[in-house]
Amino acid sequence: MTSIAELGEFGLIARVAAAISQPSDVLVGIGDDAAVLDIGSDELLVATCDAQVEDIHFRLRSLSSYDLGRRALAVNLSDLAAMGARPRFALVSLLLPPTLDVAVIDGIYAGLQAEATQFHLAIVGGNIARNAERLIIDITLLGTGVRGRLLRRDQARPGDVVMVTGSLGMAAAGVLLAEDEQLAARVPAGIFAAVRAAQSVPTPRVAAGRWLSEHGITTAIDISDGLAADLAHVCAASHVGVQLDADALPLDPDVTTVAKQAGRDPQDLALFGGEDYELLFTVPADRAPTLAHELFGATGVTATAIGTISTDGHRTLVQQGRTTPLVTRGWDHLRAESLPEL
Amino acid sequence: MTSIAELGEFGLIARVAAAISQPSDVLVGIGDDAAVLDIGSDELLVATCDAQVEDIHFRLRSLSSYDLGRRALAVNLSDLAAMGARPRFALVSLLLPPTLDVAVIDGIYAGLQAEATQFHLAIVGGNIARNAERLIIDITLLGTGVRGRLLRRDQARPGDVVMVTGSLGMAAAGVLLAEDEQLAARVPAGIFAAVRAAQSVPTPRVAAGRWLSEHGITTAIDISDGLAADLAHVCAASHVGVQLDADALPLDPDVTTVAKQAGRDPQDLALFGGEDYELLFTVPADRAPTLAHELFGATGVTATAIGTISTDGHRTLVQQGRTTPLVTRGWDHLRAESLPEL
Repeated sequence: MTSIAELGEFGLIARVAAAISQPSDVLVGIGDDAAVLDIGSDELLVATCDAQVEDIHFRLRSLSSYDLGRRALAVNLSDLAAMGARPRFALVSLLLPPTLDVAVIDGIYAGLQAEATQFHLAIVGGNIARNAERLIIDITLLGTGVRGRLLRRDQARPGDVVMVTGSLGMAAAGVLLAEDEQLAARVPAGIFAAVRAAQSVPTPRVAAGRWLSEHGITTAIDISDGLAADLAHVCAASHVGVQLDADALPLDPDVTTVAKQAGRDPQDLALFGGEDYELLFTVPADRAPTLAHELFGATGVTATAIGTISTDGHRTLVQQGRTTPLVTRGWDHLRAESLPEL
Repeated sequence: MTSIAELGEFGLIARVAAAISQPSDVLVGIGDDAAVLDIGSDELLVATCDAQVEDIHFRLRSLSSYDLGRRALAVNLSDLAAMGARPRFALVSLLLPPTLDVAVIDGIYAGLQAEATQFHLAIVGGNIARNAERLIIDITLLGTGVRGRLLRRDQARPGDVVMVTGSLGMAAAGVLLAEDEQLAARVPAGIFAAVRAAQSVPTPRVAAGRWLSEHGITTAIDISDGLAADLAHVCAASHVGVQLDADALPLDPDVTTVAKQAGRDPQDLALFGGEDYELLFTVPADRAPTLAHELFGATGVTATAIGTISTDGHRTLVQQGRTTPLVTRGWDHLRAESLPEL
């Protein structure tokens, strides 16, 4: 037999995708951040789902139930953001140990409702089932978007500038702090709190994604697997290469502080950390100089140019003048615990 | 603290529903078989989700992975059938033990695709995450339906005739056979196979549900919790009572055979068994005499009149001329293992 762990994520997705058929009303199916569906209306339907599993994606001792509710919705909102869609409806599937305190459910729903209110979406239903060992929250999120305007992974063109919203590495720094008490004790309390908060409840870039889709950008992905891995997804889908400028990566000063204390390279946290839930997107070169300014003016979200799409299919990293292949799996510690999104 | 098990299903749903808000584009929210959503198209969107949990809803030693795939989709299709919706798209969320043989996933997807093909829907995406202990398949199903025509739970009127499709009790009989090897050995092989097949992979009444919605029927529910419990849901939502005729219940002869061997009342299996996934619906009295004939002619699905909606809010059972209160929880054995659908 071959186990799931042996086959790995990408082998499993390819196997699954080969087994199913896609009719003409499925405009984007398996393999992007979300599916794009045509139900005959002016707007297209955008659908995604993502599960948070206790002791794999979160621990109840270090994450409040309220923050868990917000996080579970935020990671799904990030997938809609990566499509440029407008969030509309959520279905919440809970798998619950029967001994769980009802107060945990109250907290989760308070967090879900707070996040739903902030992003103008409705929780419309779901399911409750028993799961003896672990609390699991599995959310399906539905959004809508304008036909022909939704962001995809496969439209990057040679010469495009690669940009990323916000800053990188906070989630990876948060994991370091969560797993090493001695490290946590060496970091100033304010930095500890800021990093852990950013890691626990990421900010989905919904407004930025919608702005990009409304302003001619075609290609985006959210950074859930890590910048290097998600950039590789874009390159593979678009049949292009990339030259990434490590020294241009937008690092939060708190990430640099934590990395220094941990004896890690902060650029490594930004490249391989995963779960930052920023948007990575590509911009035609002539629009790149002004785009960050326009995006910031419209949404308050920063964007930074970090590389250039190339023709040759190779992915390279330029770091202090030295060019090396851009590896996609540099930090297995983060990856070992989860099979990322389909 | 109060545990989930103490609060129970209905307490939990009420608590959850009170915590969330419903904007105007949510036409039906939490509390029906599926949500009904308005995204501005001619057709409304219908969304539902349901999870199958290993060793709670199925056991891999007694259900093939192919049948598991079919079953996971079938129970969700039944919810769309109960709304009269047309199935369109499925998102499949898998929670997998990393040691699982990939052949199991192949089998599940073959079953999912077979069921999807039969009911003309597309599998459009999903998620894969690690869950150490159990295989869980959580499906969100999207359908569409005509505005103003979708079936609900809350439109039953006094005088309406209560009808049910197909026959009842097969799922409960299947559970008896699965859990008692000595009983299974006493039942003829052909009956054993038929009952276990009906229990393992129920037939969702999609065509019947659509026909009912297109022919003026307003109220339906699928029988997932058991006839008595699901009829109580309809009565509560519609603010009516019911008089149910136990002697009219359509029992499959195989159910009678298994019940007799097990020393059980076959009517009990039909009333309290759950998971038959037939449709329960109400019909204005003047249409009742011809409706079953029309439905059968159009879809090949039988329907049987089994009671009458009343004004008084009481739910009663008439059995061999004797009238007793219709209890909704007569057979905790089936209920104890699962928290039914939200």
